[in-house]
Amino acid sequence: MKRIAESTVRRLSLYLGFLEDINRRGTTTVSSEELAKLGGTTSAQVRKDLSLFGSFGKRGLGYSVTELLERLRRIMGLERRWRVCIIGAGKIGAALAQYEGFSQRGFDVVAVYDSNPARVGEALGDLHVRDVAFFERDAESEKFDIAVLAIPARGAQKMAERVARAGIAAILNFVPGQLTAPPKVAMRTVNMAMELEALSFALTNRD
Amino acid sequence: MKRIAESTVRRLSLYLGFLEDINRRGTTTVSSEELAKLGGTTSAQVRKDLSLFGSFGKRGLGYSVTELLERLRRIMGLERRWRVCIIGAGKIGAALAQYEGFSQRGFDVVAVYDSNPARVGEALGDLHVRDVAFFERDAESEKFDIAVLAIPARGAQKMAERVARAGIAAILNFVPGQLTAPPKVAMRTVNMAMELEALSFALTNRD
Repeated sequence: MKRIAESTVRRLSLYLGFLEDINRRGTTTVSSEELAKLGGTTSAQVRKDLSLFGSFGKRGLGYSVTELLERLRRIMGLERRWRVCIIGAGKIGAALAQYEGFSQRGFDVVAVYDSNPARVGEALGDLHVRDVAFFERDAESEKFDIAVLAIPARGAQKMAERVARAGIAAILNFVPGQLTAPPKVAMRTVNMAMELEALSFALTNRD
Repeated sequence: MKRIAESTVRRLSLYLGFLEDINRRGTTTVSSEELAKLGGTTSAQVRKDLSLFGSFGKRGLGYSVTELLERLRRIMGLERRWRVCIIGAGKIGAALAQYEGFSQRGFDVVAVYDSNPARVGEALGDLHVRDVAFFERDAESEKFDIAVLAIPARGAQKMAERVARAGIAAILNFVPGQLTAPPKVAMRTVNMAMELEALSFALTNRD
């Protein structure tokens, strides 16, 4: 498959969310115009995005909601479940470990790690925090697909490299500082301080 | 001030983080090349970004770290503190209410709201969850600058409009679904399911 821009992947996620809503309401077809309106884009953009993955829909009839849903889910790898481990059981890691939104979308949090002995053994929902010293051993036997890094900036780069060496090819990064994705690892970053700084900037530079 | 692209604001945040690191290490000057290398961009881009805010630095001598830090903090509105309220005291809202990263960056969480009577009164660090029925009254007297929305998608658009009507001009949005920023409100979105979907896409479409 040719390389797909990040912004396209983002729109595919949006379309998927809309289609799930539309499907729940029992609507069976949708036009590119409707998807465009929901996603704040143009119908030409919607058709272009979807055409990347083969031909969908019929001119004038719109798309079949169930067919489009199924194909989008397959394209995005969401017709299966993913095994997620969380590294860092502080405030953010602990909240993520218990966040139901993940399993609802097909992402099962199966392990949580910390290096702090005071946290190891602590219960988080159905899981108990494990000692990160056992991370490599577990990754081998439990086949984690995605690692969520919710640890302080200091030591985070080394941990990202441990993740990569353990054969995990995707990182969701909550580290509050600079982190470079190891080679061949897909990484997405959620930097809440940076989002707040953008709001501070917007409030400060209003007209 | 002319309109600044979101990607520029993001890089300013990155530069700020690097400068804080550099400053802590006691280094007094920095070149655009060094900032570029840390931020994964070009020195021309760094100079262009910084020149948007007046002239900085001297050719060949680099930038004074403390001067650049001070000016960047001023540009971004980070030389002051911001009053943040969190709406939604579920797993994510509760974790955010106790997340020290916010106050470290100048964002003080001063109130947390929920509509669920079972959560109202609950202690979260130094705060107690308040009934969202009192949100408008409090917003008037307590002058919140930023509202963090950590509530389910259903009802979120109405809540965003209540926030806007209460005179709050910035929203940090954790709602797991589509939300449109009310007019004149700056909004930044953290959509964790979308980030995980992007990883699922990357894992599925690897070479």
